[in-house]
Amino acid sequence: MTLPLAPALQACMASPIVESRAWVKGRTFPADRPLINVSQAAPVAAPPEGLRQAMAEAILSDTSAHLYGPVLGNDPLREALAARVARLYGARTGAANVAITAGCNMAFCATIASLAAPGDEVILPCPWYFNHAMWLDMAGIVTRPLETGDDLLPDPEEAAALIGPRTRAIVLVSPNNPGGVEYPPALLDAFRDLCRARGIALIIDETYRDFLAAGGRPHDLLADPDWDDTVIQLYSFSKAYRLTGHRVGAILAAPRQIAEIEKFLDTMVICVAQPGQIGALWGLENLDGWLAAERAEILARRAALEAAMTRLPGWRLRGIGAYFAYLEHPFATDATDLCRRMVDEAGVLALPGSFFGPAGRARGARELRIAFANVDAAGIDALAGRLAGLPFALASPGPSG
Amino acid sequence: MTLPLAPALQACMASPIVESRAWVKGRTFPADRPLINVSQAAPVAAPPEGLRQAMAEAILSDTSAHLYGPVLGNDPLREALAARVARLYGARTGAANVAITAGCNMAFCATIASLAAPGDEVILPCPWYFNHAMWLDMAGIVTRPLETGDDLLPDPEEAAALIGPRTRAIVLVSPNNPGGVEYPPALLDAFRDLCRARGIALIIDETYRDFLAAGGRPHDLLADPDWDDTVIQLYSFSKAYRLTGHRVGAILAAPRQIAEIEKFLDTMVICVAQPGQIGALWGLENLDGWLAAERAEILARRAALEAAMTRLPGWRLRGIGAYFAYLEHPFATDATDLCRRMVDEAGVLALPGSFFGPAGRARGARELRIAFANVDAAGIDALAGRLAGLPFALASPGPSG
Repeated sequence: MTLPLAPALQACMASPIVESRAWVKGRTFPADRPLINVSQAAPVAAPPEGLRQAMAEAILSDTSAHLYGPVLGNDPLREALAARVARLYGARTGAANVAITAGCNMAFCATIASLAAPGDEVILPCPWYFNHAMWLDMAGIVTRPLETGDDLLPDPEEAAALIGPRTRAIVLVSPNNPGGVEYPPALLDAFRDLCRARGIALIIDETYRDFLAAGGRPHDLLADPDWDDTVIQLYSFSKAYRLTGHRVGAILAAPRQIAEIEKFLDTMVICVAQPGQIGALWGLENLDGWLAAERAEILARRAALEAAMTRLPGWRLRGIGAYFAYLEHPFATDATDLCRRMVDEAGVLALPGSFFGPAGRARGARELRIAFANVDAAGIDALAGRLAGLPFALASPGPSG
Repeated sequence: MTLPLAPALQACMASPIVESRAWVKGRTFPADRPLINVSQAAPVAAPPEGLRQAMAEAILSDTSAHLYGPVLGNDPLREALAARVARLYGARTGAANVAITAGCNMAFCATIASLAAPGDEVILPCPWYFNHAMWLDMAGIVTRPLETGDDLLPDPEEAAALIGPRTRAIVLVSPNNPGGVEYPPALLDAFRDLCRARGIALIIDETYRDFLAAGGRPHDLLADPDWDDTVIQLYSFSKAYRLTGHRVGAILAAPRQIAEIEKFLDTMVICVAQPGQIGALWGLENLDGWLAAERAEILARRAALEAAMTRLPGWRLRGIGAYFAYLEHPFATDATDLCRRMVDEAGVLALPGSFFGPAGRARGARELRIAFANVDAAGIDALAGRLAGLPFALASPGPSG
């Protein structure tokens, strides 16, 4: 006899990351041709030494590093992040606008819990970040997919047509995961105007904002003095300061929204682990120069991949930015099959577009995500060479091709 | 204009801990008569030096201490906890039965998500741990309160009468928070038999198991070779090793349940913060002797409080164990009013019974929780003295009194 399982969770797919790991599990690759893993692009090195020392010192000598902290995060971290956002975006933000979360996935879950009930709807552009869709499924909230154009940008008018009486939010990710594209400020303004007019939230996940190619203010949403009547910003310290293993993210929203989010966080996690909060604060206070160099290196890799793609016949680069490039492949097979076979034929692990949208989304069969952030210029050259050498049949051109 | 808030979260009370903090906020107390705070009993000291050093060394020199780990926790920690449970309970448990969570609250949330859908029902004995009820409210699951007897123990026959077609689980906490009582093994067996017969889960939260007064095996549930067809055990490393600020808890369940829980954890938190996992593993491997001394000190404080209560006219000790004593007061006022006034009149902060049950639960008006674990023998003496000196009118005896 076994216990009945909750249908919503049971119906929810397992993380595609878990599935893709199975494709390489137990496999070995020749020493002179190791696997090029572009399936994920989380940092693989430790944070800078100063940050590690700040964490270690607190652990050795500061009792509060081991005790519960406030549900919404330690005050100095909330204040420092609010000040950073105020400066970067020209925003009126204070600590009361900030909730620190155990990573940006939790920031999303808590935000949705504060806005939507089972049966409500949330609009996600496709291709999407799969954990967003998974949480909506688990919470019993209906995901309305919003197909994007060839440039991977969603259209506000198409979004407007999807808004119904139970729609509670539109979720944008910029720079985009998986698409890489950076949403233009004017497009974000148009989405904000739409959401405000319809009384729904605009959630913008800016996990990768520290790697934007365009310098200066990422967008103008938060410079609006009334931003928090509509906009909720999500952020992650994981990528900026290499803190993935410490789980620190954040929400910026209206204080009344933060008060609801506080109930969720209290019940789910009580507080965010202290070493991560200590590291995030140290990073905000000390790592601006270091982070600028990190960004420059990512931008150099992006340029190398962009150049390499021009040499690959039949492939199309649909979007590139932050840690990701989003490609269309030229082969007469679907992307999931292609990605599985690329492990054997090219020693490359990438994720197919089918992972980033609803089941049956036709376009996903032609798409791949390349998470290039951990691959240096030589590796990107090798990657392009392996893709160029794939021995698959090319797709026949379509009727218009 | 403001965004509409999710009704379930808005209807959910804020944490009573937050409310009780407001009773003392900005207040000062005489230096010779400081506040005795028995509202919560989380550890207030740092973990032992060896554990802190193990964490600090990993942070300084082990890159993996900063990177994502497996969703279900690091393998060595899962294996060590499974081995500990196998030894302590005479259980057949392996790493496949274990999910590491960011604290025991998340263990509860993830477990419920794997079992119940909105509209389903879960049975909670009263008085209850309020975060359990809060999560059920947020998840749209109906809480069926199960009133306990004078001894704070729930009755399996009364529980059976509450089980309906949508009931998915009974949740027990032993040693109990807030009641302190340790559930007898035979009672737990009866609940297990009931749950198994009705095809529902028995969730047992053993956050405080390391402080059980009875030595030896805490209960026989896990010694049953088929335990995991019914029983799900929750655990916390926070109290045993003073890791509250690091967020490490665990779930023990059937592997098929763990697979569902993995989806939830992946979507919510991705992995548990690494320093906490490192500390928890170090504790399991090195702190048995230290923990035995911690337990002895808690048991001594428990004995001191038990003795002191016999000197307090009119008060009744309903339950005591782990970190908590649960009292019935003798005054002609309700417990919430009493607790607020005790701050002024006695310099004591305790939580009223009304915090530990559904709105309007009559019995809560006569009950108080005393979290005594952080108060030494002298402090317990002072506490009893202050309670004895309260200048309130005694309740008139009831018709049967």
